[in-house]
Amino acid sequence: MAEIGIVHTQYFSLAEQGVESIVLESGVRFGPITVAFETYGKLNEDASNAILICHALSGDAHAAGYHERIGHKEGWWHAAIGPGKAFDTDKYFVVCSNVLGGCQGTTGPSSLDPATGKPYGVRFPVITIGDMVEVQFHLMRYLGISRWLAVAGGSMGGMQALEWALRYPKYVHASIVIASTGRLSPQSIAFNAVGRNAIISDPDWNGGDYYGKRVPEKGLSIARMIGHITYLSEHSMERKFGRKLQHKSEFSFDFSTEFAVESYLHHQGQKFVERFDANTYLYVTKAMDYFDVAQKYGKGNLKHAMARIQSRMLLLSFSSDWLFPPQQSQDLVDALAANRKDVTYFNIESSYGHDAFLLEVEKEEAIIQRFLDASGRLWKGGSR
Amino acid sequence: MAEIGIVHTQYFSLAEQGVESIVLESGVRFGPITVAFETYGKLNEDASNAILICHALSGDAHAAGYHERIGHKEGWWHAAIGPGKAFDTDKYFVVCSNVLGGCQGTTGPSSLDPATGKPYGVRFPVITIGDMVEVQFHLMRYLGISRWLAVAGGSMGGMQALEWALRYPKYVHASIVIASTGRLSPQSIAFNAVGRNAIISDPDWNGGDYYGKRVPEKGLSIARMIGHITYLSEHSMERKFGRKLQHKSEFSFDFSTEFAVESYLHHQGQKFVERFDANTYLYVTKAMDYFDVAQKYGKGNLKHAMARIQSRMLLLSFSSDWLFPPQQSQDLVDALAANRKDVTYFNIESSYGHDAFLLEVEKEEAIIQRFLDASGRLWKGGSR
Repeated sequence: MAEIGIVHTQYFSLAEQGVESIVLESGVRFGPITVAFETYGKLNEDASNAILICHALSGDAHAAGYHERIGHKEGWWHAAIGPGKAFDTDKYFVVCSNVLGGCQGTTGPSSLDPATGKPYGVRFPVITIGDMVEVQFHLMRYLGISRWLAVAGGSMGGMQALEWALRYPKYVHASIVIASTGRLSPQSIAFNAVGRNAIISDPDWNGGDYYGKRVPEKGLSIARMIGHITYLSEHSMERKFGRKLQHKSEFSFDFSTEFAVESYLHHQGQKFVERFDANTYLYVTKAMDYFDVAQKYGKGNLKHAMARIQSRMLLLSFSSDWLFPPQQSQDLVDALAANRKDVTYFNIESSYGHDAFLLEVEKEEAIIQRFLDASGRLWKGGSR
Repeated sequence: MAEIGIVHTQYFSLAEQGVESIVLESGVRFGPITVAFETYGKLNEDASNAILICHALSGDAHAAGYHERIGHKEGWWHAAIGPGKAFDTDKYFVVCSNVLGGCQGTTGPSSLDPATGKPYGVRFPVITIGDMVEVQFHLMRYLGISRWLAVAGGSMGGMQALEWALRYPKYVHASIVIASTGRLSPQSIAFNAVGRNAIISDPDWNGGDYYGKRVPEKGLSIARMIGHITYLSEHSMERKFGRKLQHKSEFSFDFSTEFAVESYLHHQGQKFVERFDANTYLYVTKAMDYFDVAQKYGKGNLKHAMARIQSRMLLLSFSSDWLFPPQQSQDLVDALAANRKDVTYFNIESSYGHDAFLLEVEKEEAIIQRFLDASGRLWKGGSR
């Protein structure tokens, strides 16, 4: 079958299911909530082939296919989702939704607060990875799915996959946690904090009320540039840019954007501000900072936390990922193994750094296919 | 003998030596130049015991002793300079000067441009590590020294030590290059570029003309925070902060400074803006970005570049330094060894990251003492 073609984002309101609001982990009751999502492939009769894909910090519901026309706005994981691909849409019904707090259709700080008729801004409540999963739970129900064959994601998407396995163990048959972690390290918190600081320090941020005015482009751009440095490995930067100058062969002796690596980061920053909301950046990075499964589910003990898990687990890390280094996956694997859980782990050799989860699709493909095949067989075999 | 007590910064004007201006590597002729420096210990009769200490990005001429009163404003390398210390002031005459482009007494962007009577701001010329060394050369002459027993420094100070050995091979008997590199990697350039971007994006930067007005505190603070992340290792952050919260035991669910690591970075940022000039940050990081000894002295070939060196070389790196990783020192050592140069190298086991060069003084001390002792003997032996 051909690749996935043109797709449309769909919308679902929790209120349609009678859920006017949900209680967030902070204790705050919040609603209404609308969810933007896309689906690829077909749900089978017994709804046993549904896979939820969770997106990373800057992702959205548009994981595969094209919006508007072929070649235009390809989904962020198009290489991994489609007929014959890692997530084979000839076999599986694949779902991806924009996270709570996002800015691509799901309710977030840029949404209108019905109480005021104005965007929430920082009146939007602080959320957690658990809250994102809670909203996805309602989407699952809405789609007529009583249990995911698999929940999968990379980076922050992997956090959601892990949270699903812990929060709703009976609703997940298999989990795929890629380039992720059970807790943000202080170094990652530090990078996030500096990024938020850059946004909040931008006068155009204006206490979060910038909608319809000048947006805090400079601050958000700096945050994105910091992020991008952490997504690449030193080796991949060396190979991609080295010390090459962007335009000239000689130093310009001024403060223009001079080295190719500077130019790349500028460009990434500029592209990002056109499509992403600065407040969402604040909320989503904060949710990541709070993520700590040992603390939340094991009173600080990772092994105790992992005891809750009932799904088959596949963990993938990448050798040159220094944002969420392989050791953080290994720690999860060790804790799962200590609980005699069904866990498979590959540390994939790659020089791409954290970005490898999006780039090394070929290396991921066979591993994921085999894991999903086995998961499907075990589901049918009624192993649980 | 007791430790170094109260010291005073001295000033020297190149014009006093008849040098009204110097030609910078950019080709620009620039002057007048004043240099702030301090000295510790006594120059011996044949001026054979003089050691130049070069400071890092945020350092200054105040390397040892105290300003005003004991306990007040200790020099940045006080632990390494003094009687019986790594740089033993009972034996050696130790000199440290603020770099060209600096903001602690040596001519820099905050200095008054005699042509306008106003601070230079970005009308100050873009400088290089070589230009910093050129100014130090005139200081050497002024002090009646015809050759340094040693030139030593860590981080950007190590770049200056290396540049000295390459630019003025006959004027340096021994070189000590600590936690440094022969070229800035694209990753380091990227971090510097984002820091500069944060400063330039701060409206208070005002095109560099902020003297006497609001200074770009927010931008400079962000730049410093980014820097600080790169100075620590993941391990040292984990040990120092972990995921500890600063004030509470529970999440605050707001955007206040919450984690201990955030609070530390904020504090470092705040302290820095009180003592450092944002324009100097721009100029000095740019000088670092330009640093590439293979390019400058070997047409891109590091071995060819190192052939120029005549001084004895000591290189030290630290195992957990990811800003200037050990491999970058190893590359220099290999190129020196390939030229059969007198080179000694230690990769010191440390968990402190790049900051180790300031913190692991005990581990550095014996190595440096032994190297300087031998260097002194070889000088007297008239080996060259």
